[in-house]
Amino acid sequence: MKLILVSNDDGYMAKGVRELMAMLAPYGEVIAVCPDKGRSGQSMALTFDAPLRIKEEKSPVPGTKLYSCSGTPVDCVKISYYSVLNGRKPDLVVAGINHGSNASVNVLYSGTMGAVQEGCTWGIPSIGFSLTSHDPDADFSAIKPIVDVLIPELLERGLPQGTFINVNVPAGFADVPISVCRECKAHWSEEYKEYTDPFGGKFYMLAGHMVNDEPESTDTDLYALSQGHASLVFEALDRTDPSAPKVI
Amino acid sequence: MKLILVSNDDGYMAKGVRELMAMLAPYGEVIAVCPDKGRSGQSMALTFDAPLRIKEEKSPVPGTKLYSCSGTPVDCVKISYYSVLNGRKPDLVVAGINHGSNASVNVLYSGTMGAVQEGCTWGIPSIGFSLTSHDPDADFSAIKPIVDVLIPELLERGLPQGTFINVNVPAGFADVPISVCRECKAHWSEEYKEYTDPFGGKFYMLAGHMVNDEPESTDTDLYALSQGHASLVFEALDRTDPSAPKVI
Repeated sequence: MKLILVSNDDGYMAKGVRELMAMLAPYGEVIAVCPDKGRSGQSMALTFDAPLRIKEEKSPVPGTKLYSCSGTPVDCVKISYYSVLNGRKPDLVVAGINHGSNASVNVLYSGTMGAVQEGCTWGIPSIGFSLTSHDPDADFSAIKPIVDVLIPELLERGLPQGTFINVNVPAGFADVPISVCRECKAHWSEEYKEYTDPFGGKFYMLAGHMVNDEPESTDTDLYALSQGHASLVFEALDRTDPSAPKVI
Repeated sequence: MKLILVSNDDGYMAKGVRELMAMLAPYGEVIAVCPDKGRSGQSMALTFDAPLRIKEEKSPVPGTKLYSCSGTPVDCVKISYYSVLNGRKPDLVVAGINHGSNASVNVLYSGTMGAVQEGCTWGIPSIGFSLTSHDPDADFSAIKPIVDVLIPELLERGLPQGTFINVNVPAGFADVPISVCRECKAHWSEEYKEYTDPFGGKFYMLAGHMVNDEPESTDTDLYALSQGHASLVFEALDRTDPSAPKVI
């Protein structure tokens, strides 16, 4: 039986990961190791200066196992091999279903996509799923047919070494075609709100919104989502710029 | 006068950033915004659920300014624009000098390189410097001639949008040639040590070491470092895999 390791960044209590476990259960032995609390925006952050703890939780899906871990999503993937997996290497790492989009530059900041990239560094085919809704009780059902297409394919054929997949699904659509895209160029416009604490000190909190830097392009993930399609981007672990000069 | 924003992940007290500020001072107005404590391994993690504070510290270099921030390296870059820079956009973001290598896959986990990538998302030419020594009192002097070559060039010519630079310098060499390289394929072999706390609970701490997955290649950053050269890798913000299929 294939071994599927699941993680996320919204924490083990999130609806998204629980729905994902149910969708994956028909395809193998499902073991989820998720942060013990929300760890969104943790990117590939890891913990090397503090103890990590893992605890078995009541799994919502019969035949699967669910653990919480006190670390980041990357920690969850890293430590699973040495603890709950007892040295077994997963056949697949699946992260999500994220509550909120990880399209475009969000892949850089996302803890869910951090877990996916960590799986990729281990040479394991790795994929992340996100829904473009932050609703804690969002309807994830449109993702099931996409899982049913992609997961058997990945388990059978794998992925090239160093390639991982980022799937984003628009919320509010029932029947969602999949578009293979490239990552859209975009940036976050940060708008920090300034506050004064009760003792006169200043502090800031992050607001902000994503700005599409190429709104005319029709081959990007943001465009696909705007058309009610799921976006699928093959992403590279290797950061070397393929168009970079070879000398300085 | 050119505006140079500096950050790091070892915190504002680290020798590496203080030496870097002195090296950069001849080239423009230097403003450093660094974490208020060590934030290594924070990747592009950001803080959106907690207040951020910024405090001016005594700068070690006349004519420059130094601030500590309660967030991650990415937070430091993001918030600087809205606080200490008063809406001025830097001409250059420089991060480091990191105490320890950020070559190969370390670029994924490094908070210092997270700050560089954040600068790149803002469309600012951005570069990170690292020395392959974790010694808090390491000798950074071999990096000065490299800074003197690269910084005037970057200030004059910039970088293509979406490209950033990762420079690593081997410790213990006096005269260090620069090799333009690609990122070496490598992975971390994690070796968690298991402990038992005073109450019988288990916890883990991360150890581990990096394994070079292509030790025969001579065009990689890890090879350059092994030869006593500084490695310079042009890296891409866009994660789309250039060799990926266009359909599934």
